[in-house]
Amino acid sequence: MSSPSYDVCAIGNALVDVIADASEAFLQEHVITKGGMTLIDAERAASLYDVIGPTVQVSGGSAANTVAGIASLGGRPAYMGKVKADQLGSIFRHDMHAQGVMFATSPTAERRQEVREAVVDRRRGAPTGRCLILVTPDAQRSMNTYLGAAVEFGPDDVQTDVIKDSQITYLEGYLFDPPEAKKAFYLAAKTVRENDRQLALTLSDVFCVNRYRSEFLDLIKSEIDILFANEHELMALFETQDIDNAVAAARSCCELIVTTRSEKGAVISQGKNTFTVPAAPVAKVVDTTGAGDLYAAGFLFGLTQGMALDEAGRIGALAAAEVISHYGPRPQKKLKDLLNLKSAVA
Amino acid sequence: MSSPSYDVCAIGNALVDVIADASEAFLQEHVITKGGMTLIDAERAASLYDVIGPTVQVSGGSAANTVAGIASLGGRPAYMGKVKADQLGSIFRHDMHAQGVMFATSPTAERRQEVREAVVDRRRGAPTGRCLILVTPDAQRSMNTYLGAAVEFGPDDVQTDVIKDSQITYLEGYLFDPPEAKKAFYLAAKTVRENDRQLALTLSDVFCVNRYRSEFLDLIKSEIDILFANEHELMALFETQDIDNAVAAARSCCELIVTTRSEKGAVISQGKNTFTVPAAPVAKVVDTTGAGDLYAAGFLFGLTQGMALDEAGRIGALAAAEVISHYGPRPQKKLKDLLNLKSAVA
Repeated sequence: MSSPSYDVCAIGNALVDVIADASEAFLQEHVITKGGMTLIDAERAASLYDVIGPTVQVSGGSAANTVAGIASLGGRPAYMGKVKADQLGSIFRHDMHAQGVMFATSPTAERRQEVREAVVDRRRGAPTGRCLILVTPDAQRSMNTYLGAAVEFGPDDVQTDVIKDSQITYLEGYLFDPPEAKKAFYLAAKTVRENDRQLALTLSDVFCVNRYRSEFLDLIKSEIDILFANEHELMALFETQDIDNAVAAARSCCELIVTTRSEKGAVISQGKNTFTVPAAPVAKVVDTTGAGDLYAAGFLFGLTQGMALDEAGRIGALAAAEVISHYGPRPQKKLKDLLNLKSAVA
Repeated sequence: MSSPSYDVCAIGNALVDVIADASEAFLQEHVITKGGMTLIDAERAASLYDVIGPTVQVSGGSAANTVAGIASLGGRPAYMGKVKADQLGSIFRHDMHAQGVMFATSPTAERRQEVREAVVDRRRGAPTGRCLILVTPDAQRSMNTYLGAAVEFGPDDVQTDVIKDSQITYLEGYLFDPPEAKKAFYLAAKTVRENDRQLALTLSDVFCVNRYRSEFLDLIKSEIDILFANEHELMALFETQDIDNAVAAARSCCELIVTTRSEKGAVISQGKNTFTVPAAPVAKVVDTTGAGDLYAAGFLFGLTQGMALDEAGRIGALAAAEVISHYGPRPQKKLKDLLNLKSAVA
């Protein structure tokens, strides 16, 4: 088998983040689940947007943030996800390409240009999805996601040739929310298996785990080579309050498990081996959005470069530290330069 | 005459800023005038967007930034400017309202809904304008403006009742670029004069001054009560290399002149009096976009609150210092809190 063209191919809900500061009282008044990701419909998205403060718009989407991080580190990532051919969709597409990510999923409106004009008018479809992110003074982020065009991602959008040509395929747990994306998820998994590549999954969110627990467990046991989760997601998956029990349960299902624990660092488990990697220092945590996404970016980059697991974990910690030191879910600095700086100091 | 409802009413080109980091070499390669504002057409906007790095989108527009700052300080501002009813236009509108600015200019596409469908399709009009801002490592910003829907702002969009009801009307020099906006500018000036309010102008940009020097000079002599400029703009207006000569020349044309000089602070001239106000300290200058806009915000806020000129100048310096300490042209912190902090310390 020839060496793959891509280090990591990710599939996810393609979203633009709309970020605003908010107080604790605001979250309570508007019944927003703190720290979680709540799915909202178009109407709720509009009414919530009306009451939030001034916003910053940046490309987001969990797996998309991860591949942006991999590109910033110097890796070769690909991405699949659905936007509409509208202004927010253009922003998402631009940022993928500008960061160096291969991204060729056709947007929804383009396809519809193929049908005749009258039909185009009637079936204009949902706009590019967005995530309204409210950042409280403690730097915690509370996400309200209107999936929009992302719900139209389906098996036809899975470029199996790209998956065949990727060392690792990385999937979001969030993909279980749009029905067609879930089918795409299984097609991607099948393609990975048939081509003897590796499949990685992130559990995404505690509420997401609660929605799809049994499906996630089946999938992890049968298909997943590398599992990413934060401690709360892993405990939710195995319905335990004890992180050691959760990690032990995960070990019996999956070969390689990366569990992030915020400022307590990460635990990397492979077979009988366990590595504990400390969190990288951060002068001031501004916005925790993207912390898990960027940890995965650093770890996957290290892994695909052939580094040891603990070294890959340290790159994850560095990438996560950069992203939580500013607003927005993607690196503002070229992460490759951070690695060079670290080498220069060491 | 009753007390006005608004402290400041601003008219400007309504734009969304698209911000990316860039190197000096990139500016040279793509023939971008460093530190200036260059008007670009739709084609150039698209080709430049294709080659710049990942971006952040935030509402901008010079006078719009100023009124956002006034609202953030606790003042009562209004704004007039033209967007299209598209996604970027929604972002601009949201941010004005979320900040507490009265903004009711009808967007271009809404009006067109009044004509029959067939016409709507043919005359879809330009999208909301945007400014591609490239920030070099020295924190200097180079602006490339595609005016888009802003060119459709005209005299019909001037809400004369709002101008009558505003203590000060503040106009951008940039309004001279779109032909219809220039007509609106003169209507606004006439309304101010007839209602015995005050008219303020910012010279906006050296290249803008060079485009409209004689018109600006006529206008300042006949209509302007308060002139804002940075030292380079003022020297360009009077075609001198000497800032003292430029200020002296300005004094013979205008009652109150606020000249900003970056880290050298500001010079405020009223009749025979001159106040020199130092710049406020900034730990690290990240992006100078909006420095002049926010200086004007602080000064106009102070002035409309009845403060002494030097005190108003100090509020301008504080507001400018906040905005250059992060990416984007509008305050990230509630500026009112900075004033309170300062009072608490003093």
